[in-house]
Order: sequence, then structure tokens, then C-alpha cells
Amino acid sequence: MASPSATSPILGIDLGGTKIDISCARLNGQELARKRIPTRPEDGPEKGLERILKTADEVLDGARVARVELAAVGLSVPGPWDHQAGAFLKLPNLSSWSGFPVRGHLENHFSIPIYMDNDANAAALAEWKFGAGRGCSDLIYLTMSTGIGGGLILDGRLYRGRNFNAGEVGHQVIVPGGAVCGCGLPGHLEGLCSGSGITRRLRRRVTAENSAMWQLAGGDPVNLSAEILVAAVRRGDALAVEFFQQALDELATGLANLVFILNPEIIILGTMVAKNPDLYLRPLNRLVRQKVWDIFTSDLRIVAAQLTDRIGLFAPLAVVLDALDLEPEEVNA
Amino acid sequence: MASPSATSPILGIDLGGTKIDISCARLNGQELARKRIPTRPEDGPEKGLERILKTADEVLDGARVARVELAAVGLSVPGPWDHQAGAFLKLPNLSSWSGFPVRGHLENHFSIPIYMDNDANAAALAEWKFGAGRGCSDLIYLTMSTGIGGGLILDGRLYRGRNFNAGEVGHQVIVPGGAVCGCGLPGHLEGLCSGSGITRRLRRRVTAENSAMWQLAGGDPVNLSAEILVAAVRRGDALAVEFFQQALDELATGLANLVFILNPEIIILGTMVAKNPDLYLRPLNRLVRQKVWDIFTSDLRIVAAQLTDRIGLFAPLAVVLDALDLEPEEVNA
Repeated sequence: MASPSATSPILGIDLGGTKIDISCARLNGQELARKRIPTRPEDGPEKGLERILKTADEVLDGARVARVELAAVGLSVPGPWDHQAGAFLKLPNLSSWSGFPVRGHLENHFSIPIYMDNDANAAALAEWKFGAGRGCSDLIYLTMSTGIGGGLILDGRLYRGRNFNAGEVGHQVIVPGGAVCGCGLPGHLEGLCSGSGITRRLRRRVTAENSAMWQLAGGDPVNLSAEILVAAVRRGDALAVEFFQQALDELATGLANLVFILNPEIIILGTMVAKNPDLYLRPLNRLVRQKVWDIFTSDLRIVAAQLTDRIGLFAPLAVVLDALDLEPEEVNA
Repeated sequence: MASPSATSPILGIDLGGTKIDISCARLNGQELARKRIPTRPEDGPEKGLERILKTADEVLDGARVARVELAAVGLSVPGPWDHQAGAFLKLPNLSSWSGFPVRGHLENHFSIPIYMDNDANAAALAEWKFGAGRGCSDLIYLTMSTGIGGGLILDGRLYRGRNFNAGEVGHQVIVPGGAVCGCGLPGHLEGLCSGSGITRRLRRRVTAENSAMWQLAGGDPVNLSAEILVAAVRRGDALAVEFFQQALDELATGLANLVFILNPEIIILGTMVAKNPDLYLRPLNRLVRQKVWDIFTSDLRIVAAQLTDRIGLFAPLAVVLDALDLEPEEVNA
């Protein structure tokens, strides 16, 4: 095979806890075909892989790309993974896949290089190469959904750390002894401000008497969620506004810590923030500036992710670009 | 001048708030001569520079090195500085030097390259090239004296960040709304666990009745210090032990945050810890492991700095080596 060019096609697999995006795209970012299937973790990894490979064939058909034309496969997985074995670690939302050597299976099937990374690193690479972080050298990306993950681009390259686990910015302590995080440790940013953290905290505070969130949840605390919080904030519900401001302040503390430690040029916030930039960005920019020194903020930007709906396409693609050491300019040219 | 070799001599200036170390050494680490003078910030920078240059001449005489033989000057300064201007920013312990373009003055005087960095970065480079961090790629160095500063070696190079201010790990929030730090913001690691933070907190808690620290301070709270705390811990004073354990736990939270964010191979702790490794290292290693996941700790080491007394020699030297992009092996060869 010739060395990859801007128009070389790749197969992308964005594997999440609930859905899998499978796409075919050229290295310059041009989408050729894409399909989404449910993950169905309860079926286990063997059946899941079968469905992925079947869908990949359909996607390649739709893209009119033959398997032998593919330059590589990019794979994004929802959490830390075993770098040597190319296998899954025990992930809360995909525990049935624990230990499954997904990279080896894909290598056997496709006989081309398989490049793999976790979702936060993949999204950071994608926003850096195609989205809000283009042209930046020092970038922090935060996923803000069920959990809070992070990807770090430092000095113009993805920083992975000693065991390839760097960027777990959601697990810094914000409130010592505070609400227990999904990981079992107290007071983490993720335990306080992620979708699941917010849901847990709302369940302890919202009653029929004190907030419109009760009605929005149909009178059942189980239905409370970050989406309901945001809806109630937009209606001016007093408890929702108070709660939201507290969560913003905690999030700002976490971002300020990152600014002191890493002095980034840009912080890109995904998911919840990208869906509601008007509610998050202005107060976060203000609060973070109150919590750090001026020498850090002269050209600091805190912005929303740009690739929201298309991250399933760009995340695996960016993993491949990074592995091949290709810069966006080279493939966009 | 020929390109620098392992035996090329450099002049090192380690400028601190109270003392200045001036040294002549070869790039391979061999010390040729060294002298220490007081900083006397009250005299202002012009007089300070005069004394530095005079002492430099004496050091070069002692080293039998002529000025024209020098390959470079390495300069370590006690805090953030203006990278473009090579000048001082307003530093709490050296405010009279604020704005003084020290690099330009040295360039005019020596007519050779002047390489400059802050003390924490310089010490991180020194421990990496000559001390406890040799051979590591992902290293966090913490100064633990009046303040808490940090230097980050990530992926085998010093990480400086967008505005050259990365590594201010002492200013992460550990206790929201907690004790005000020297920088004016509440709850920072430095405000709690640095020498000055410990001193401030002891003054509020120690009385003649509740602790032997009162006697150790000669009955005057002004004399309380981290050194007195450590002495009282060694005697088993109950309040000192309780206070010390709390500070260790706060410090461990800060280190755990850094482990989650940066996944280092080694954390090197200077000054206070390096003077009392038996009191700090075992509990810190245990506490940090309780506060992070196992996937981060398989080969994590938390150790004391090795260059303690000789940091004034090795810090400016390491700044030069790094600027010349020379690895220790090359110059040690």
C-alpha cells in the first residue's frame, strides 16, 4: 500500500457505552458514509464485534470503498484501556467487555493498522485537528456527560503519561469528603458536576414543594437529570438556579486548578456545555478569571466543543491522523 | 566559539529572595568554584547586579576560567518572569527587582547566551538531569519551602505552557474557602502546606497550654515555623502530630490530583521533604495510593529531591543544558 494521502479512506469506530458510530472518511476529514448502532453491552463483546464488522461492511459499501483501499482503522473506546494488549479494562458502562482484546480482533479481520485511544483523548485530538482548537499548542478538552474525562494536548502533542492514563481531570478533589464519585472516591469534580453527579445530588435535594424540577421529572426523583436542571434554570426555578450556580463554581475551581498546573491557551468543553453554551461559557470565563492570576488569562479562552454531532466521525479519524503523525494542514491541503 | 562540549564551563546564577549562589561548572556537572552572597532586596537591582558581577569575577578566578571561555550563563529566578523582556515580574520576596531586565544586562556584560528560567523549572530540570529523576520521562518536581512551586517534565521535556507559567501546582484549591494563600486566593495547597502556610496556621492554633511548640518558639508565636512543627512531631507532641497528619493528608490530595491529571512516573519533593524524608515519604506514598486508582500506581514513585545542598549549582547548569538541547548522557560521556 502507498503511504497515506489526504484522500486515503479510513474506517472509524467510535465505541460508546450505549451506541457505536461506524464511519468511513478520508484523512482530510471528508465524510463518505456513516452508520450508528446500539452497543447492547448485555450481549457481550463477541456478538458486539460481529455487529460492528457487519455494519462496517455496510458502511464501506455505502462509501464505495473496498476493504483493501483502507489506510487504517481508528478506534475510540469509552475509558482507560490496556495499551500493551489493546484490550478493555473494567469500564463502569461496558464491564462485559472487560479484557476483550478488541485491537487484535480488528487486526486479524482487516490486516491493516488499528489505532486506538480513549474517547477523551480522541475527542481532544479531533477538536484540535478539526474543531475549536485548531492552531493551538496547549489545549485541554473536557467531556462533560455521564462522567467528566479529559484529553491534554501539550506543546503540540497528545500527552498520555506514564501508563497512558493522563487526563483524568474529572477525578481531582474539589470538595474534600464530598459526594462520592462513580469511581468510589469522595469529592471529585466528576462526582459533583458530571451528569451522573448532578443527578445523584438533585435526588437528595428536590421535593414536590421546593422546585419545579419535581414536576419536570413527572413526580419521580429517578427521572431527575442534568437536562431537567438546565430546563428548570431556563424557567428561573430558584432551587435550580442556586444549584446550577454552585455546580458552575465547582467546575470553575476544577478549571482554575488546570490553568495553574498547565497554563493552557484554550479549554474546550464538550457535551452538556456544547449543548448549552449560553448558560455555561460566560459565567465560567468570569469565575475562572477570578480564581487564577492575570498572567494566565491574557489569551486564555474557555469555549464549547465544535464537533458535537460529528465527534463520532472525527474522533477515530483524529486518532489515525495523530498515529500517522500527519498534521491537519498536510491532509487538508 | 566552538560548539559546547562536556567540559565547556558555564557560569551559574541561582538568584533567591535571601541568597544568591554563583558558580562555575562544566556542562558534565563538574563543579569548579562556587560562592554565596546575600540578596539584600532592599538595595535594589542595580546594586544587586553589581555585586553579582563582582562575585562572578571572583568565582571565575577561583575556577581559573577566563570570561571568554564561558559557553553560556544559566540563571534561575525565584518566580514567574517576563519571557520576552527577560525581566522580573512582581515577586512577593523580590518586589524591588520588579521590571528589571536582568537578562539584557547580563547579555551586555558577558556577550554570550544567557539562559533563564524560574527556580521550580530549573530545579525540575536539575533533578531530571542529575538527581532523583534521571532516566524518567514524566516527572513532577515540587519545591516545598516558603511557597510550593512546581516543574513539569512531560514526555521527556520541560513543559512551560502558553505563557511560560505552567507548573504552579501549589495554587490548586485543596480546601474551598480555606486559609488565604500568599497570592490572596483561598484554600490553595501553598496556603495550607507551605512553610508560610504552616506558620500562619500554627499561629492561630498554638498556645502555651496546648503544645510544646509554644516553648520551642520561645513563647512568641512569631517564631513558630515548619521547622518547629517538625521538631515537635519528633517529640510526639499531640497537637503537632495531629496538625502534621492533616497537612500530609492535604498534600496527598494535591499530589493525587496531579497523578490523575498527569499520570507521572515520579514525583520529587524538595526542601522540607528532602530534609525530613522519614516523616514525609512513607505516609505520602500510602495516602496518595489511597486517593488514586491502581492503574496509576503500578510504577509511581514519590521520593525526596537528591540535590538539596547543590541545587544552587545544578539548577542554572540544567537550564543551560536544556536550552542547548544536550542530554546528560552526552555531556557525562
